[in-house]
Amino acid sequence: MRLSRYFLPILRENPKEAEIVSHRLMLRAGMIKQEAAGIYAWLPLGLRVLNKVNAIIREEQNRSGALEIMMPTVQSADLWRESGRYEDYGKEMLRIKDRHERDMLYGPTNEEMVTDIFRSNVRSYKDLPLNLYHIQWKFRDEVRPRFGVMRSREFLMKDAYSFDLDYAGAKHSYNKMFVAYLRTFARLGVKAIPMVADTGPIGGDLSHEFLILASTGESEVFCHKDYLGFTPPAADVDFDDVAGLQGIVDKWTSLYAATSEKHDAAAFEALPADAKVSARGIEIGHIFYFGTKYSAPMKATVNGPDGKDVPVHMGSYGIGPSRVVAALIEAGHDEAGIIWPDAVAPFQVGIANLKVGDGTTDAACAKIYKALTAAGIDVLYDDRDERPGAKFATMDLIGLPNQVIVGPKGLAEGKVELKNRRTGARDLVSVDDCLVRLTGREP
Amino acid sequence: MRLSRYFLPILRENPKEAEIVSHRLMLRAGMIKQEAAGIYAWLPLGLRVLNKVNAIIREEQNRSGALEIMMPTVQSADLWRESGRYEDYGKEMLRIKDRHERDMLYGPTNEEMVTDIFRSNVRSYKDLPLNLYHIQWKFRDEVRPRFGVMRSREFLMKDAYSFDLDYAGAKHSYNKMFVAYLRTFARLGVKAIPMVADTGPIGGDLSHEFLILASTGESEVFCHKDYLGFTPPAADVDFDDVAGLQGIVDKWTSLYAATSEKHDAAAFEALPADAKVSARGIEIGHIFYFGTKYSAPMKATVNGPDGKDVPVHMGSYGIGPSRVVAALIEAGHDEAGIIWPDAVAPFQVGIANLKVGDGTTDAACAKIYKALTAAGIDVLYDDRDERPGAKFATMDLIGLPNQVIVGPKGLAEGKVELKNRRTGARDLVSVDDCLVRLTGREP
Repeated sequence: MRLSRYFLPILRENPKEAEIVSHRLMLRAGMIKQEAAGIYAWLPLGLRVLNKVNAIIREEQNRSGALEIMMPTVQSADLWRESGRYEDYGKEMLRIKDRHERDMLYGPTNEEMVTDIFRSNVRSYKDLPLNLYHIQWKFRDEVRPRFGVMRSREFLMKDAYSFDLDYAGAKHSYNKMFVAYLRTFARLGVKAIPMVADTGPIGGDLSHEFLILASTGESEVFCHKDYLGFTPPAADVDFDDVAGLQGIVDKWTSLYAATSEKHDAAAFEALPADAKVSARGIEIGHIFYFGTKYSAPMKATVNGPDGKDVPVHMGSYGIGPSRVVAALIEAGHDEAGIIWPDAVAPFQVGIANLKVGDGTTDAACAKIYKALTAAGIDVLYDDRDERPGAKFATMDLIGLPNQVIVGPKGLAEGKVELKNRRTGARDLVSVDDCLVRLTGREP
Repeated sequence: MRLSRYFLPILRENPKEAEIVSHRLMLRAGMIKQEAAGIYAWLPLGLRVLNKVNAIIREEQNRSGALEIMMPTVQSADLWRESGRYEDYGKEMLRIKDRHERDMLYGPTNEEMVTDIFRSNVRSYKDLPLNLYHIQWKFRDEVRPRFGVMRSREFLMKDAYSFDLDYAGAKHSYNKMFVAYLRTFARLGVKAIPMVADTGPIGGDLSHEFLILASTGESEVFCHKDYLGFTPPAADVDFDDVAGLQGIVDKWTSLYAATSEKHDAAAFEALPADAKVSARGIEIGHIFYFGTKYSAPMKATVNGPDGKDVPVHMGSYGIGPSRVVAALIEAGHDEAGIIWPDAVAPFQVGIANLKVGDGTTDAACAKIYKALTAAGIDVLYDDRDERPGAKFATMDLIGLPNQVIVGPKGLAEGKVELKNRRTGARDLVSVDDCLVRLTGREP
């Protein structure tokens, strides 16, 4: 993409309304624009990151055997009356009347609707297990929306719902999502630690939040240091291997890890001194087994092996991709701007042309741009007639992992500068070497 | 994908509520489920098709230079008061009050919001042209929603908005979209004919609807037969070539084509007898230049080359992907079910195992499944313990373009059957030849 043809409305000043760094940097980098309180439009740069996050989530959901669907945003209130939540849900639910005065709502979550899809179509235990997910906009009418897309009213959510005949099956479905989440967050370039969460009236131990450590995090967390060194499950993990998955889950829940709500000070103090990590964290995922909470009142039953109809055991599994984008920035930034993990960077490479209009410089940039693009790499080519300083600042602000700086001085010696955003390392290399390093191939 | 692990709730009976063939077949093929009047969930098979349609639309929008963003579904009423449309828009607009009693609405379209994004960020004519699009859910509260996703209340829309300094620039932007639409529809496997549409108070001739011919279409259309033989623009068309694009648009508007609303019986009668096509059609796209209709009242201005601020000239360009899916079925089906164009088929190949549990048959199916999947082909493998007749009926109903039928009888002679859904042609071929034909590669 040529920057002269892109829409990247960078802000020079720090926007006053932004209280946290991710909000500030997302506004400054031209990733989002607020349209109403807690409601944002995603501009081209932001959407690129959001889509890369979605793609990784989707791949790992699919790998685990979950099936993607797309439920609508507007729901009938009647479904929620069946589960009893229409009255229970407070003012966070955006209630709507349509032109025929029917009670509708903008879905804050989809347990009722997916249970309805299930009960309308599945009759037998032979069609289980089943896990249906979608990545769809939700609305929660927060009293005081803040922190940009970290806590917005309209937000994107990947929510998966599992259906099983019994608790044992549900536990395996839960473990599948647990492992899929470990892989997802590792691919997103962050270390996420599962922490036991409240199960409320459901009871049991099948509820975990996944938190990443960030000094600006909203929660206080305590965990064993070894979690930070754990290797995430490999891509060829067998999701049908019940014992194998349980082993992975056991390992990742074997050491101490808790948010302040579930903190057990005595247990934490008992850890060796050098194993104690006390830090701040951001929740980026939540998985939850809730048994027959919805299937029983909504009569989502299957015919079991013994011929009797039983309500299915369900769980739900959420990741908020729009919130994840902000969390990645909280976990990765410096004074100059955002430092993206490679996997979700909006462009993997930026090219700064230091003298637009100079034939040699333009030609070198064009060659690099063409070769990288042909290799399937997302490139942002800054071909604007701007000062070098402004170009460097833009690339650092928007966090491009690899930056190629091309100017007449370097080219006179046959060199361009290759800069690594994260380490700050700069190397003078030939154009061909630059291409080899960025594409991993000989030119 | 193994069908035993998929969610494909096929209906045996024709659903009574479905008045048109696409609605009937989408319900029967387990593509969609109605959740409320005019509100549908997309089940796995339907979503696959919808995503393939979206991907083609997106590629062609990007090729033309349009930039993807994502605007929220919920909008502030204040924006619509600025344009004057908040009062004008009737009951089709879904009006919402949030918890603070602020007037909000579920966007039926996004002219106001995109104009706001523009005016907040663009100051100079040097930043033009600009075309921003998104693919997002919209809501129009139809009195009597019907015809499934062909006329639903919550529907997906790709809407692009162009911004230019003057009419000449706007016309070129319009032509870019015209050409992108020709390419999009050709890639979707349909012949779409541009027809002049009403421009209302804006005047001029820059408004076209794109219609495909289908005997079940909602509109009466009249056109010159030669349109059906026109070659769509090539992938390397130069979108910066003003004269070149105008030439393409001129060619595609040179012959008679009109819906009944704009029909000129005398002009049509003047065509040679064998050139007259009188048929039914379905609108699947609409492009529209509307000048300063929104930019003037909303003060979306740029500083022009002469230093004066002028309101930008805008156009909007819509395709409804959810509606397109239904239209493709209206244009492609037979008694047995759907006939998808290859580019949007949910799976390119279906494998029917005629004797699940038979070692040789299972092994042959597994080999074919693995080889096709490795070649990047979407395959649905029917590994259920079902009668052959039910498997054939399912594959024809859901419209898989290529079907591989594998049974012990054929395998005894080293053969499988390869069936083409569209032509009905069946060939007995060896497994290796089958793979060569489907992948285009030697095994």
